[in-house]
Amino acid sequence: MEAKEEDVKLGANKFSERQPIGTAAQSQDKDYKEPPPAPLFEPGELKSWSFYRAGIAEFVATFLFLYITVLTVMGVSKSSSKCATVGIQGIAWAFGGMIFALVYCTAGISGGHINPAVTFGLFLARKLSLTRALFYIVMQCLGAICGAGVVKGFQKGLYQANGGGANVVAPGYTKGDGLGAEIIGTFILVYTVFSATDAKRNARDSHVPILAPLPIGFAVFLVHLATIPITGTGINPARSLGAAIIYNRDHAWDDHWIFWVGPFIGAALAALYHQVVIRAIPFKSKS
Amino acid sequence: MEAKEEDVKLGANKFSERQPIGTAAQSQDKDYKEPPPAPLFEPGELKSWSFYRAGIAEFVATFLFLYITVLTVMGVSKSSSKCATVGIQGIAWAFGGMIFALVYCTAGISGGHINPAVTFGLFLARKLSLTRALFYIVMQCLGAICGAGVVKGFQKGLYQANGGGANVVAPGYTKGDGLGAEIIGTFILVYTVFSATDAKRNARDSHVPILAPLPIGFAVFLVHLATIPITGTGINPARSLGAAIIYNRDHAWDDHWIFWVGPFIGAALAALYHQVVIRAIPFKSKS
Amino acid sequence: MEAKEEDVKLGANKFSERQPIGTAAQSQDKDYKEPPPAPLFEPGELKSWSFYRAGIAEFVATFLFLYITVLTVMGVSKSSSKCATVGIQGIAWAFGGMIFALVYCTAGISGGHINPAVTFGLFLARKLSLTRALFYIVMQCLGAICGAGVVKGFQKGLYQANGGGANVVAPGYTKGDGLGAEIIGTFILVYTVFSATDAKRNARDSHVPILAPLPIGFAVFLVHLATIPITGTGINPARSLGAAIIYNRDHAWDDHWIFWVGPFIGAALAALYHQVVIRAIPFKSKS
Amino acid sequence: MEAKEEDVKLGANKFSERQPIGTAAQSQDKDYKEPPPAPLFEPGELKSWSFYRAGIAEFVATFLFLYITVLTVMGVSKSSSKCATVGIQGIAWAFGGMIFALVYCTAGISGGHINPAVTFGLFLARKLSLTRALFYIVMQCLGAICGAGVVKGFQKGLYQANGGGANVVAPGYTKGDGLGAEIIGTFILVYTVFSATDAKRNARDSHVPILAPLPIGFAVFLVHLATIPITGTGINPARSLGAAIIYNRDHAWDDHWIFWVGPFIGAALAALYHQVVIRAIPFKSKS
Repeated sequence: MEAKEEDVKLGANKFSERQPIGTAAQSQDKDYKEPPPAPLFEPGELKSWSFYRAGIAEFVATFLFLYITVLTVMGVSKSSSKCATVGIQGIAWAFGGMIFALVYCTAGISGGHINPAVTFGLFLARKLSLTRALFYIVMQCLGAICGAGVVKGFQKGLYQANGGGANVVAPGYTKGDGLGAEIIGTFILVYTVFSATDAKRNARDSHVPILAPLPIGFAVFLVHLATIPITGTGINPARSLGAAIIYNRDHAWDDHWIFWVGPFIGAALAALYHQVVIRAIPFKSKS
Repeated sequence: MEAKEEDVKLGANKFSERQPIGTAAQSQDKDYKEPPPAPLFEPGELKSWSFYRAGIAEFVATFLFLYITVLTVMGVSKSSSKCATVGIQGIAWAFGGMIFALVYCTAGISGGHINPAVTFGLFLARKLSLTRALFYIVMQCLGAICGAGVVKGFQKGLYQANGGGANVVAPGYTKGDGLGAEIIGTFILVYTVFSATDAKRNARDSHVPILAPLPIGFAVFLVHLATIPITGTGINPARSLGAAIIYNRDHAWDDHWIFWVGPFIGAALAALYHQVVIRAIPFKSKS
Repeated sequence: MEAKEEDVKLGANKFSERQPIGTAAQSQDKDYKEPPPAPLFEPGELKSWSFYRAGIAEFVATFLFLYITVLTVMGVSKSSSKCATVGIQGIAWAFGGMIFALVYCTAGISGGHINPAVTFGLFLARKLSLTRALFYIVMQCLGAICGAGVVKGFQKGLYQANGGGANVVAPGYTKGDGLGAEIIGTFILVYTVFSATDAKRNARDSHVPILAPLPIGFAVFLVHLATIPITGTGINPARSLGAAIIYNRDHAWDDHWIFWVGPFIGAALAALYHQVVIRAIPFKSKS
Repeated sequence: MEAKEEDVKLGANKFSERQPIGTAAQSQDKDYKEPPPAPLFEPGELKSWSFYRAGIAEFVATFLFLYITVLTVMGVSKSSSKCATVGIQGIAWAFGGMIFALVYCTAGISGGHINPAVTFGLFLARKLSLTRALFYIVMQCLGAICGAGVVKGFQKGLYQANGGGANVVAPGYTKGDGLGAEIIGTFILVYTVFSATDAKRNARDSHVPILAPLPIGFAVFLVHLATIPITGTGINPARSLGAAIIYNRDHAWDDHWIFWVGPFIGAALAALYHQVVIRAIPFKSKS
């Protein structure tokens, strides 16, 4: 199977110009260049200020992400009448909206991951080095712990009484349900990230780089709408780890592996889907 | 009647430059080129990887669409207090938001239809071949069945007890009301799709291609706000079919024709309105 | 007073380059051209297909606007528990969201007014001819009547029992309060329209034409959030007239003048503010 | 420490081209120019119409901001059932949405601050002169007082009985909690403003200037989702002052200092973070 690469525009037919397929593909192929895969280890990175700055940006972003979202969860949880709060929908907006705003703010500094599953997916697609991926994940987890810690600091009793925003599989669902929900949910997020950062589309579709942070934020919002009743929605191991460490109760730790294994599987599937099915990169000639 | 084509800018008067009408129209006509109509059968497509890739993208997108939306419906339906859920408004966001995110992700691969009514409307306007249209509709329906199936797999009893997200005409409304609601609702969606993909506007108005996925998603959201109390809102035969097959109760099948006939009539009216009234394509000279 | 025209960028200081004021202004003035005022009567328009097409587009858009919004209002009003509906916030989204989608769709055809107050404000600023303004207002009112009529057709008893989406001043507020709320509300909408269609900013700020339909839709949404408890929010005489004619009860007609006088005063103030204070057009030399 | 300035794209690896670091940085550095710091006093400004027009725009924007938001708060507060109102989430949308629309409208006129904390942060980064900063803050406070005053004028008894939209630390939280919430909340807002107005990113990332008002509005929305239960959310001293003066009860004045000290500390930290960590401006050579 050859790697034919003709794409269609929104709603349009591929053969709009009735050109021979190969010709169209060849001329379009020159419109963009797939960047070379990132090396596993890039010693030069470690001497660059921008490398450490990117880590700091990931730390601060994940800190702010956990702070706002867990505080919103606490505000909803502590009230007996959900009507007098921003509601479960407000929680979904907090998660999705923060990802929108933070991806917008940090995209130019660190790439705007704010999520170890996103970092893992982009690493699998060789968009960043292993060194950088590990550094990002550590900084994300530290930021998440600090963010949840500040929320606990505001009202310790309330925090512990209301679940601390930790992810657990809800009663009535099996661990398999929770794992499946995390896998598909993270697939949606990481698939959106890949679509938004696609080198080919960036070269041609003007709306791709411009809107990018918005559909990424919406993907997070939508997965929360659907899976808050099942797992509270993780799809971000740093967010799950931060809440679990600060909450630190057995029943949160029992399910904790789901919120690492699920997102990493979902991110891997999204990377596979985008790189192999959509971009057919393995089938492309290297020239 | 001649096909005069002067458009006005947002809020502006057509005669801003006081040019003679014909002159202005003629000079503007060169700004864009209406692509030729797609052939009914395009044998070359069937040998192209991008054709099958587009079908896979439609399958995956419709799968994710049904998964998230039906899961959100289940989360709201199973709770006795709607206040402790994302609410009916959250359901509307799930449908509209997923269309926004998925159109954004798949627009460059398959055109981002995710809906047989959209495919049908664009086919009527000769924007894609019959072969491609049929292939898309089959893939959309298969994706929808799988998406609803996964939700049922999570909690079978709950799924069947809460209507399974299937579309039925609500008590108090006639089948005619339901059909009318589906026709107008789909008209709004497909009219928005045509406005967003208009070749003439794409050449001139910079905000058209950039924002495109957003108003399309909003159109779906808005129709849900209005017609969830009447039919649960179909405006997407694949979504209605997927839920009906997995739910598979008589009362869902009784009304099922409404969710194919209504959307197809609405899509045809939108195609007619855009091509004949707005673009006056039948009255244009062919040169 | 001279018409100095230096603007500042988002968050930036005007004197970023420390250029002499006059010089900077003069060089910037060449970046854009204020279009000449539209004539009161433009006989050529009446022979142009695009003139009638624009009227049809305003009719269809206002029809769809009333259909979706009044249907949403009915869905919320008929339920005893607002929690089991999209809620008052959902009504605000229906109004604002429809304006966003419809302005997006019709901006290139008719200018996307969908509101006699917007047409009136833009007419005062001489952005369209009197002929066109009157034609638009008639078509908007006809569209609104039809849109509300279809909703009544679905469930006549329910429509009449639940207020039919007609605007009235709520108990506890004086007619003066209602008038004031309509004036300020329409000011916000028309001020946003003027900002989005500003010829000078369009020439320089890339985000102005691209985002334009979004802040206009948000302005409508926001005014509804604030003033639904006072008047049900008009800020659109066609919307108020359509609902009043189809509902046709005395108490709706008693307050009806407020929903024409208020929006027209608000639109006139916004036109005055934008043209005189922001653009200083009366103080500009004509050369 | 050198000021290396290589940024990464959304999701991408910094070393996509495997160029030597220094080279890449040097060539990129020419893409943009950090504007020179604004002078403390700029006598020329005081003779410019655009200076006074900017002040008027800040006054009008802050007037409209307080009018819509406090009116929305009143509508929610006066109802015994929050379900029959736009809800707490609707209040958050009112604050965030107004900032989105108003930043969009006034960005080209005054820079779109509408908030003394934003003005203070941008002043610290030397983006505007001290004269202009003080003028803006005075106009913002006057606008806020008038906006809240109009709302009180509608229903005086109701206004006083429902807290008048004034910011106070909620029972169960210490003044330190309130101060912390204001500091972090304002940090998020002002950090987003800095990211959106970054001179370097504006030169390279096309989505930065285009979307700018949207993430700024979302930042305000998100902070409200999280901290309405703690302080009612200030993060805008003009908003807090306007409501406090019109409400004028002792318990509102007791906490009032928090809503000036907190936002100013948060804005200063955001300016520090962006200028020193992200942009490393102090470490740059002046050439």
